Amino acid sequence: MQSQIIQRKILRTICPDAKGLIAQITSICFNHQLNIVQNDEYVDHRSERFFMRTELEGRFDDERLLNDLDRVLPEGTIRELNPAGRRRIVVLVTKEAHCLGDLLMKSAYGGLDMDIAAVIGNHDTLRTLVERFDIPFHLVSHDGFNREEHDARMMAQIDAYAPDYVVLAKYMRVLTPHFVRHYPNRVINIHHSFLPAFIGARPYQQAYERGVKIIGATAHYVNDNLDEGPIICQDVINVDHTYTAEDMMRAGRDVEKNVLSRALYRVLAQRVFVYGNRTIIF
Amino acid sequence: MQSQIIQRKILRTICPDAKGLIAQITSICFNHQLNIVQNDEYVDHRSERFFMRTELEGRFDDERLLNDLDRVLPEGTIRELNPAGRRRIVVLVTKEAHCLGDLLMKSAYGGLDMDIAAVIGNHDTLRTLVERFDIPFHLVSHDGFNREEHDARMMAQIDAYAPDYVVLAKYMRVLTPHFVRHYPNRVINIHHSFLPAFIGARPYQQAYERGVKIIGATAHYVNDNLDEGPIICQDVINVDHTYTAEDMMRAGRDVEKNVLSRALYRVLAQRVFVYGNRTIIF
Amino acid sequence: MQSQIIQRKILRTICPDAKGLIAQITSICFNHQLNIVQNDEYVDHRSERFFMRTELEGRFDDERLLNDLDRVLPEGTIRELNPAGRRRIVVLVTKEAHCLGDLLMKSAYGGLDMDIAAVIGNHDTLRTLVERFDIPFHLVSHDGFNREEHDARMMAQIDAYAPDYVVLAKYMRVLTPHFVRHYPNRVINIHHSFLPAFIGARPYQQAYERGVKIIGATAHYVNDNLDEGPIICQDVINVDHTYTAEDMMRAGRDVEKNVLSRALYRVLAQRVFVYGNRTIIF
Amino acid sequence: MQSQIIQRKILRTICPDAKGLIAQITSICFNHQLNIVQNDEYVDHRSERFFMRTELEGRFDDERLLNDLDRVLPEGTIRELNPAGRRRIVVLVTKEAHCLGDLLMKSAYGGLDMDIAAVIGNHDTLRTLVERFDIPFHLVSHDGFNREEHDARMMAQIDAYAPDYVVLAKYMRVLTPHFVRHYPNRVINIHHSFLPAFIGARPYQQAYERGVKIIGATAHYVNDNLDEGPIICQDVINVDHTYTAEDMMRAGRDVEKNVLSRALYRVLAQRVFVYGNRTIIF
Repeated sequence: MQSQIIQRKILRTICPDAKGLIAQITSICFNHQLNIVQNDEYVDHRSERFFMRTELEGRFDDERLLNDLDRVLPEGTIRELNPAGRRRIVVLVTKEAHCLGDLLMKSAYGGLDMDIAAVIGNHDTLRTLVERFDIPFHLVSHDGFNREEHDARMMAQIDAYAPDYVVLAKYMRVLTPHFVRHYPNRVINIHHSFLPAFIGARPYQQAYERGVKIIGATAHYVNDNLDEGPIICQDVINVDHTYTAEDMMRAGRDVEKNVLSRALYRVLAQRVFVYGNRTIIF
Repeated sequence: MQSQIIQRKILRTICPDAKGLIAQITSICFNHQLNIVQNDEYVDHRSERFFMRTELEGRFDDERLLNDLDRVLPEGTIRELNPAGRRRIVVLVTKEAHCLGDLLMKSAYGGLDMDIAAVIGNHDTLRTLVERFDIPFHLVSHDGFNREEHDARMMAQIDAYAPDYVVLAKYMRVLTPHFVRHYPNRVINIHHSFLPAFIGARPYQQAYERGVKIIGATAHYVNDNLDEGPIICQDVINVDHTYTAEDMMRAGRDVEKNVLSRALYRVLAQRVFVYGNRTIIF
Repeated sequence: MQSQIIQRKILRTICPDAKGLIAQITSICFNHQLNIVQNDEYVDHRSERFFMRTELEGRFDDERLLNDLDRVLPEGTIRELNPAGRRRIVVLVTKEAHCLGDLLMKSAYGGLDMDIAAVIGNHDTLRTLVERFDIPFHLVSHDGFNREEHDARMMAQIDAYAPDYVVLAKYMRVLTPHFVRHYPNRVINIHHSFLPAFIGARPYQQAYERGVKIIGATAHYVNDNLDEGPIICQDVINVDHTYTAEDMMRAGRDVEKNVLSRALYRVLAQRVFVYGNRTIIF
Repeated sequence: MQSQIIQRKILRTICPDAKGLIAQITSICFNHQLNIVQNDEYVDHRSERFFMRTELEGRFDDERLLNDLDRVLPEGTIRELNPAGRRRIVVLVTKEAHCLGDLLMKSAYGGLDMDIAAVIGNHDTLRTLVERFDIPFHLVSHDGFNREEHDARMMAQIDAYAPDYVVLAKYMRVLTPHFVRHYPNRVINIHHSFLPAFIGARPYQQAYERGVKIIGATAHYVNDNLDEGPIICQDVINVDHTYTAEDMMRAGRDVEKNVLSRALYRVLAQRVFVYGNRTIIF
């Protein structure tokens, strides 16, 4: 049934490419009297895959709209229709405050359209900071548990908040495949390095040893392990011979939090599509 | 009449915004059996203006396609249908070689889809460089001519080559309004500064005096004078207190040529739309 | 008298250039058994001025060291000897939280070697945020006071904390010359624009209207007014036609806080020298 | 014997760190009546190594100056005294023109203080371009030779020109250890990737497959093989999902030539010191 109030929603379509797709989808929206506020599409000619993000405004009859679309879209189509607006987040942390602090500030004072439902740490270090912002903090220690057990306890705590996304803000634990599969394309990580360089432990030490002149950070979806997954955003800064590994770490923190924040902005605006190991970002 | 061979063409549409525009345009392309290789559109909600660039492949009947479009598009529509591919350029220069050298290299060895039909200088300094690349060089001196007369002689020489675009590669003369109106949205300039900062003479000296930590360059269409016009591309580099005004100039040359080249790449691919004093770039 | 404990101090020298200055200064340090941890010098050949920052470690007899230096250094020398380490800051704010939030985080959790003694606002908006970090917040409203009176009240409140530096973290008031002269080279401002472009009100609106492709921010010492003074740090980000003035403002906030933080890092490390309207940064 | 004319020379010192080094070296220069135009030093506290670059002006008696220095400098010191000014270069190429073109332009029209004595290719592709600039081109084909034989023929051809440096401007051959040892810290390569990422063949294809959002290039000294050696300069550009591997390659060419040129600028100015696998750059 058509809604009586005017809403804004995002229609996201991924399907095998075919002639006339844009015409067909936008015609259906037009027939539903929906105004296209913004439309972006992309065809990946290697995989012959079509991606479209349509920002719509009007009175929605979701069921009828999706039915009309399903009638014309090719087999294998994935389409979603979600309201625009704020998303619900759970943040996982360990001991480092810089990314978390930026998320807390932007959630409370503007910059990211999200509510932080809770922060969960495997250490208690950041409890005070979180509670300063009147947000629940949960300690889920890994002490005395194996990886599967700990992840199960984390998942139980996360799921109690039913978040749209799980953000790893310097959460320094490797996740089990079970955890990752439980939140498909919904876990975002900030990797403290310019991937694919310096995978693994102590990337700033590695960067120092190699004498690099640029360091960076990478925000990505988590699929198999912490160092892989589709890249959403990357940035770098210049360093020189006067930087110790510690100086690089300090300078790197700002890049990390900036990159995570920029990636989240795009994800929250439903602008990021994942296909294979790549992202399409409108 | 429909062409017998498969071609690639770019359809560019600017019109007042209205519901269903994308659906209507893409449906017509679909009816013409044209494949949409890439489509980009943008609505400027302030001016209520719709912009679309559609890269099409197939057998074209230009006249019928444009007629079909004109039947549905609103009054005030500007639409163009041009073949994709190389463009024809005339370059204007004075004495500095760096931008010209980059254009000559990229025209001859790849990087910019353009043929340099000729280079015209108000000084003879760069003749040797141009002739090394087997391209005609014309000296059109301003000695003994007022600005109007000199521009008239320039225009005669330019028009003999019927170029798609005129590129000012460090051409250090202010153009007359008559010249600018003669090539609407077809004259591209590289401004040796990060506009709107440091308008006027000796920008690097100005930057030095002000003690700035970043300098830049701006590529733009020329409308009224050398320091105005819709911006196409900008970039910057970091400088510090050890840079003299001369050092800034040397470092600035690389930014200038890079920015001009990036701007031209977009213009040649018919990706740049001008509306008022702004550009929309797909 | 020579200190019994090993300390680290910074010797900063500005004087007319002369032959042998480095040899003379470093010889005196050597005679005092002080180890030079890091030494940087620069000669500005335009003003014939010599700048040197010497990071020393050892047992200091400050008076004797400065006396020895004064005996050899030319007339007109300014030299300071200060302990390395944390500095004491008062922050002035109006209503915007992003720069303040970053300073609070870095003061509390690392990244900037400073203690925020107090935050003073001409509005009460940010009281809660500041008090979350257990730092005193003072409202010094400008309501009912002229500019001189308000600045006098601000100065009284600031001076009660005897700070090393005053940081304007989006403090949206023009300062009186009296205020500025009271804290020579000790007031640091973040200008919400890439100076010298877009001086004045609503810089993001100006940037939007001009259709720029890059926006930026500038941290500088305040001398005469908010838009002038020696530049310490600048940075930029790319924007495109899809950015409204509001989008630019949101993206600009991250640049602003990053640039302010980077500038402060250098100032706190006593790395920034001011000479005329320029900075020398080691 | 002291020269009768005023000259500018660069004194470069690497030695074990010790107290008083700056004082001792600069005192000797002072005693020789030499003016220190610019002095930079750095102590690597990990290796306890002292690096100093002193730009001197005056009448030089090289032998006496070096003797005086040797008397005070610790054992294990490496010091060089070279005239400032243009350097002599041989460029090695294969088939790609973009880096070579930039070097030819800057050698002929300013930007790099070097004379290109000759260009040597293992293919004949770039002969015309080189000869356009009136510089000798030599084909030293690898056809029918093993790697050692080919490198021996290259070295013979290079050594005939007695260059200060050998620049690999997209020379796509792996060098033998014999070749590399023959020109210690004198071979500069541009690596078509942001090291340490994407080592090996087809880096742009690798970058595309990984879905990175940033690509870059690295200029470095060659020690053991093409993908190692002390890094001199790196830079990056942003890419997005619309870039094919080919688009990345095109965009990457500009980064490559910019990075190579910036690295060479520093090398030619004798600003780059090598220690282990790292560079110190003043």
